[in-house]
Amino acid sequence: MIELLLVGIGTGNPEHLTLQAIRALNSADLILIPRKGADKADLADLRRSICTEVVTNPAARIVEFDLPRRDQSNPDYRGGVDDWHDAIADVWSNTIRSELSGSGTVAFLVWGDPTLYDSTLRIASRLNPAPSVRVIPGITSIQALTASHAIPLNEIGAPFLVTTGRRLRDAGWPAGADTLVVMLDGDCAFQHVDPADVTIWWGAYVGMPQQITLAGPLAETGPRILKARAEARENNGWIMDVYLLRRKSADGEQR
Amino acid sequence: MIELLLVGIGTGNPEHLTLQAIRALNSADLILIPRKGADKADLADLRRSICTEVVTNPAARIVEFDLPRRDQSNPDYRGGVDDWHDAIADVWSNTIRSELSGSGTVAFLVWGDPTLYDSTLRIASRLNPAPSVRVIPGITSIQALTASHAIPLNEIGAPFLVTTGRRLRDAGWPAGADTLVVMLDGDCAFQHVDPADVTIWWGAYVGMPQQITLAGPLAETGPRILKARAEARENNGWIMDVYLLRRKSADGEQR
Ligand SMILES: C[S@@+](CC[C@H](N)C(=O)[O-])C[C@H]1O[C@@H](n2cnc3c(N)ncnc32)[C@H](O)[C@@H]1O
Ligand SMILES: C[S@@+](CC[C@H](N)C(=O)[O-])C[C@H]1O[C@@H](n2cnc3c(N)ncnc32)[C@H](O)[C@@H]1O
Repeated sequence: MIELLLVGIGTGNPEHLTLQAIRALNSADLILIPRKGADKADLADLRRSICTEVVTNPAARIVEFDLPRRDQSNPDYRGGVDDWHDAIADVWSNTIRSELSGSGTVAFLVWGDPTLYDSTLRIASRLNPAPSVRVIPGITSIQALTASHAIPLNEIGAPFLVTTGRRLRDAGWPAGADTLVVMLDGDCAFQHVDPADVTIWWGAYVGMPQQITLAGPLAETGPRILKARAEARENNGWIMDVYLLRRKSADGEQR
Repeated sequence: MIELLLVGIGTGNPEHLTLQAIRALNSADLILIPRKGADKADLADLRRSICTEVVTNPAARIVEFDLPRRDQSNPDYRGGVDDWHDAIADVWSNTIRSELSGSGTVAFLVWGDPTLYDSTLRIASRLNPAPSVRVIPGITSIQALTASHAIPLNEIGAPFLVTTGRRLRDAGWPAGADTLVVMLDGDCAFQHVDPADVTIWWGAYVGMPQQITLAGPLAETGPRILKARAEARENNGWIMDVYLLRRKSADGEQR
């Protein structure tokens, strides 16, 4: 029997690690670390150094593996993602099979929280034989963002919607909430929002040494973010950013 | 100059604490622990035992204080909350003034994450003189819920809305998302949702020894939750619960 631990590690600050995550990593026979594209070598390094720092159990073997790449040319987006998840599940299965003889505990380091815009749980459900799965929550980029600005996520008693850059660009401000959190945005979709009465709180590399934050009325702050983002991306070779948009609520009050 | 640290401690599992939270608590001159109503004595105990376990700095003084109660009879909800926050800010100011002579670092233990449905940041902004405020993120009840069920928060690339029981009861399923997370729900507002094609993942005391979870089609699972919730509330004297509702998306697929 294989037990799979999906361990949230937070968003780049090694001190985001919880005591539960540290205990989980030290309970594993095998710790798997994905190597991503070269652009994100920083992130693989970070995972490696987290292991070096907190894994004190000498029996825990740390193994890196290469992730297959997604076929970006597949015109069927959902189908392409499905095939990609299958390919990753194959790599996992093979690695687990060659490292463990049929039983043991395997831990995966997952960026942020394993349940937020992450495919690890879906990939795990494709493993054969099916392992038992345990999720260890981790600090998300949403929380690292609101912490960095010291702002509440929600207005008092009000809802908020978490969405993607693609959705915001394609469908505009969605119904149902005056607070939006936008993730997975490669093209600054906030440019497609009417900026009147909207405030933005933006952060890149939140929690990491390179962290950059900017906030203010969207009309003035949007162009500053475009510039800062392009520069940072150029300097680091990659970027991850997240932002919160809040518009004056229907009763005219920004809380 | 006063520095205020709002330290997220997670939702009841002492191992939700992050290394950053532990470092923050140990950097404080003063750690303030609120005593709530007697019903939630468990929670005050938990905060106390967290401090005992992780605070190793002998210079950090731990002080408990009584929170004023909100005037539930005030017909103006927002005005009542404002007055209550002012009253709490007064208690904080007085405690800080009497414990520190004008400068130092004060840490507050905040349930879950300090930016999610929590008033601590708003109260801090009423302090006079204004302190500098730092937020340390903590594991939220949303993450403890999804971890306990080992489910993704979102469908692939899809948004989710976080809202309150009151909103769900008063306005039904909001536009904009097929996944809802419902917090602050004293009356099982899921009863007011058309259960066709809706799945619920529910959790009470998530992360705590008393944790209870139930999941399944809303039509059958709703009544089981009502019963389990009433019993648990009776046995423990209090309850905190949170749930995720997911309905088949417009394209008919539940992912
Ligand atoms: C595939 S999702 C993974 C989210 C992750 N599971 C979490 O809990 O935050 C990647 C997206 O998360 C956000 N993100 C992750 N880490 C970030 C960081 N350190 N700074 C800013 N945004 C980040 C970005 O929006 C990025 O496009
Ligand atoms: C005032 S809000 C505070 C939320 C907190 N800041 C967080 O990050 O989860 C209280 C609500 O959080 C949820 N909650 C907090 N702790 C919980 C727990 N251990 N189990 C279930 N729900 C919890 C419940 O919905 C409760 O009504």
